[in-house]
Amino acid sequence: MTFPISLEDVCRAAETLKGVTVRTPVLENPDVNERLGGRLILKCENLQRTGAFKIRGAYHRMFGLTPEERKLGAVTYSSGNHALGLARAARLLGSSALIVMPGDVPKAKMAAVRAMGAEVVTYDRDSENSADIVARVIGETGRIEVPPSAHPQILAGAGTAALELLEDVGPLDAVLVPCGGGGLTAATAVVMAQGAPGCAVFAAEPALFDDTRRSLAAGERIGNPTGRRTICDAIMTPIPNAVTFPINRALLAGGVTATDAEVRAAMRFAFEHFKIVAEPGAVVGLAAILNGQVPIRGRSIATVITGGNIDTVRFSQLLDDDDG
Amino acid sequence: MTFPISLEDVCRAAETLKGVTVRTPVLENPDVNERLGGRLILKCENLQRTGAFKIRGAYHRMFGLTPEERKLGAVTYSSGNHALGLARAARLLGSSALIVMPGDVPKAKMAAVRAMGAEVVTYDRDSENSADIVARVIGETGRIEVPPSAHPQILAGAGTAALELLEDVGPLDAVLVPCGGGGLTAATAVVMAQGAPGCAVFAAEPALFDDTRRSLAAGERIGNPTGRRTICDAIMTPIPNAVTFPINRALLAGGVTATDAEVRAAMRFAFEHFKIVAEPGAVVGLAAILNGQVPIRGRSIATVITGGNIDTVRFSQLLDDDDG
Repeated sequence: MTFPISLEDVCRAAETLKGVTVRTPVLENPDVNERLGGRLILKCENLQRTGAFKIRGAYHRMFGLTPEERKLGAVTYSSGNHALGLARAARLLGSSALIVMPGDVPKAKMAAVRAMGAEVVTYDRDSENSADIVARVIGETGRIEVPPSAHPQILAGAGTAALELLEDVGPLDAVLVPCGGGGLTAATAVVMAQGAPGCAVFAAEPALFDDTRRSLAAGERIGNPTGRRTICDAIMTPIPNAVTFPINRALLAGGVTATDAEVRAAMRFAFEHFKIVAEPGAVVGLAAILNGQVPIRGRSIATVITGGNIDTVRFSQLLDDDDG
Repeated sequence: MTFPISLEDVCRAAETLKGVTVRTPVLENPDVNERLGGRLILKCENLQRTGAFKIRGAYHRMFGLTPEERKLGAVTYSSGNHALGLARAARLLGSSALIVMPGDVPKAKMAAVRAMGAEVVTYDRDSENSADIVARVIGETGRIEVPPSAHPQILAGAGTAALELLEDVGPLDAVLVPCGGGGLTAATAVVMAQGAPGCAVFAAEPALFDDTRRSLAAGERIGNPTGRRTICDAIMTPIPNAVTFPINRALLAGGVTATDAEVRAAMRFAFEHFKIVAEPGAVVGLAAILNGQVPIRGRSIATVITGGNIDTVRFSQLLDDDDG
């Protein structure tokens, strides 16, 4: 099958992003490796500009707009990392961004998005639908929708994280990618399929939001039951994305999961052994390595730490309380 | 004057440490730089093996022992990062380490040092003297004393952090080094004096433990008044070290300080904008940049984040409480 992006698209995106996004470090701890009996490699996108990998795709998409489109600006729905990345990207390119957010999002998050230069429009989660608000904004303003992942230029931008991983580390046996909509996972899979064919790529999900894992097993998109919750707010998606799922179905080795307790243990592990701040959804892959779903003994396993946007109070709660 | 080490010694030490210590990342945040109007560069030794730069010097010194000396093993007094680094270095080289620690050190810290493979001997801070205990151990066992900084091979090892900084970043206007005994500061000053003569090196100290700053001003070693406290436990030294002070007096641009409140703000800054875990003593340089003691507008200023060995409970306290 043909995919919406190729390794070459990702390489071109990397040229565009040079000097804009941070070439994030790849961390290893020799003492951890000794204990695990294999190499554990963290691609630290929590250390990326705006605290998450999202700016890679957002900037690349905004860069691809025509001058007229850039003048009109971007609009998206997001309550988190994509909003921050898009806001920053828009301002860097002399454009503007309008973010549709539920009115009950923490004030700090809303303030951060505004501080990045974006306009915020809130809506009532119970009586209104985010897609309707976005459509209304588009109708009124002509703004261009920049979705979190389902666009080839966004996928190509996201793939640059995998490209850097490939360049900075030797051969890998597997990569685990925290998976919400599936964009970073699909982009990583494309990069590895062409650039490192021996490397297995896994989607890593919260145990109660394993829609991609179950969809991969079933061969078709299956959603999660409603009413569930997880601490991994960044990847709490209802169903695999229609654009990214065919790529993932064709290329992934499978799906792995971690419980919220395992995610918290992985956050502590990242704190203690790597001295980094990671948000819950960012360590699902690490948690799935530590809980043994992908054997590491004698192998080299990488995972992307996708973001670090968490406030100090919430961070403390998740690390310290035993059942917070 | 001639110094106990030269840039060439540091380059040789770097060869010895290759594949043993981590080439730690240098972090920059373009959005922070934009806000500050200059480049802020963090050399992240908190991401070093054993969580601090100390293993560089400890390993290099242990490597320099004769086979007979290595067989006898090392002994030192330390309540923290030097203990962890020395313990790990000793085990990596098939030697052993005995650490003299006050009996009231947190159990977790003692356990961590033991987990790194070292033997721990405790003493009573009120009725006994650490130097006496170390001397007694040497008398009984023939172990070699490996001090935290006052030895040329330890200085040369510590200097490799500055060497990497120099190699990874372009020209720098200044480097601020958290300063306790003064070893890392002196080693950095030697590297910069020979490798980047235009770069000013500053000792950064807690406001109430500014013995190096005052000694530099006076031209001779002056101690701190007793009975003082700071949250910067790793650099709470009574007086500049006799071996390192002459180097610092000859080469430093001066001393800067930060209050405990400024140190806590810098820890939060590192958390929020760089997503890293730093211990209090590790961010004194960052705090002194943020409090304006070394102007950054239009300039490139680096500081070494010297360590990240802090437990989650203490970390939360320092970040969240307003007067904890």
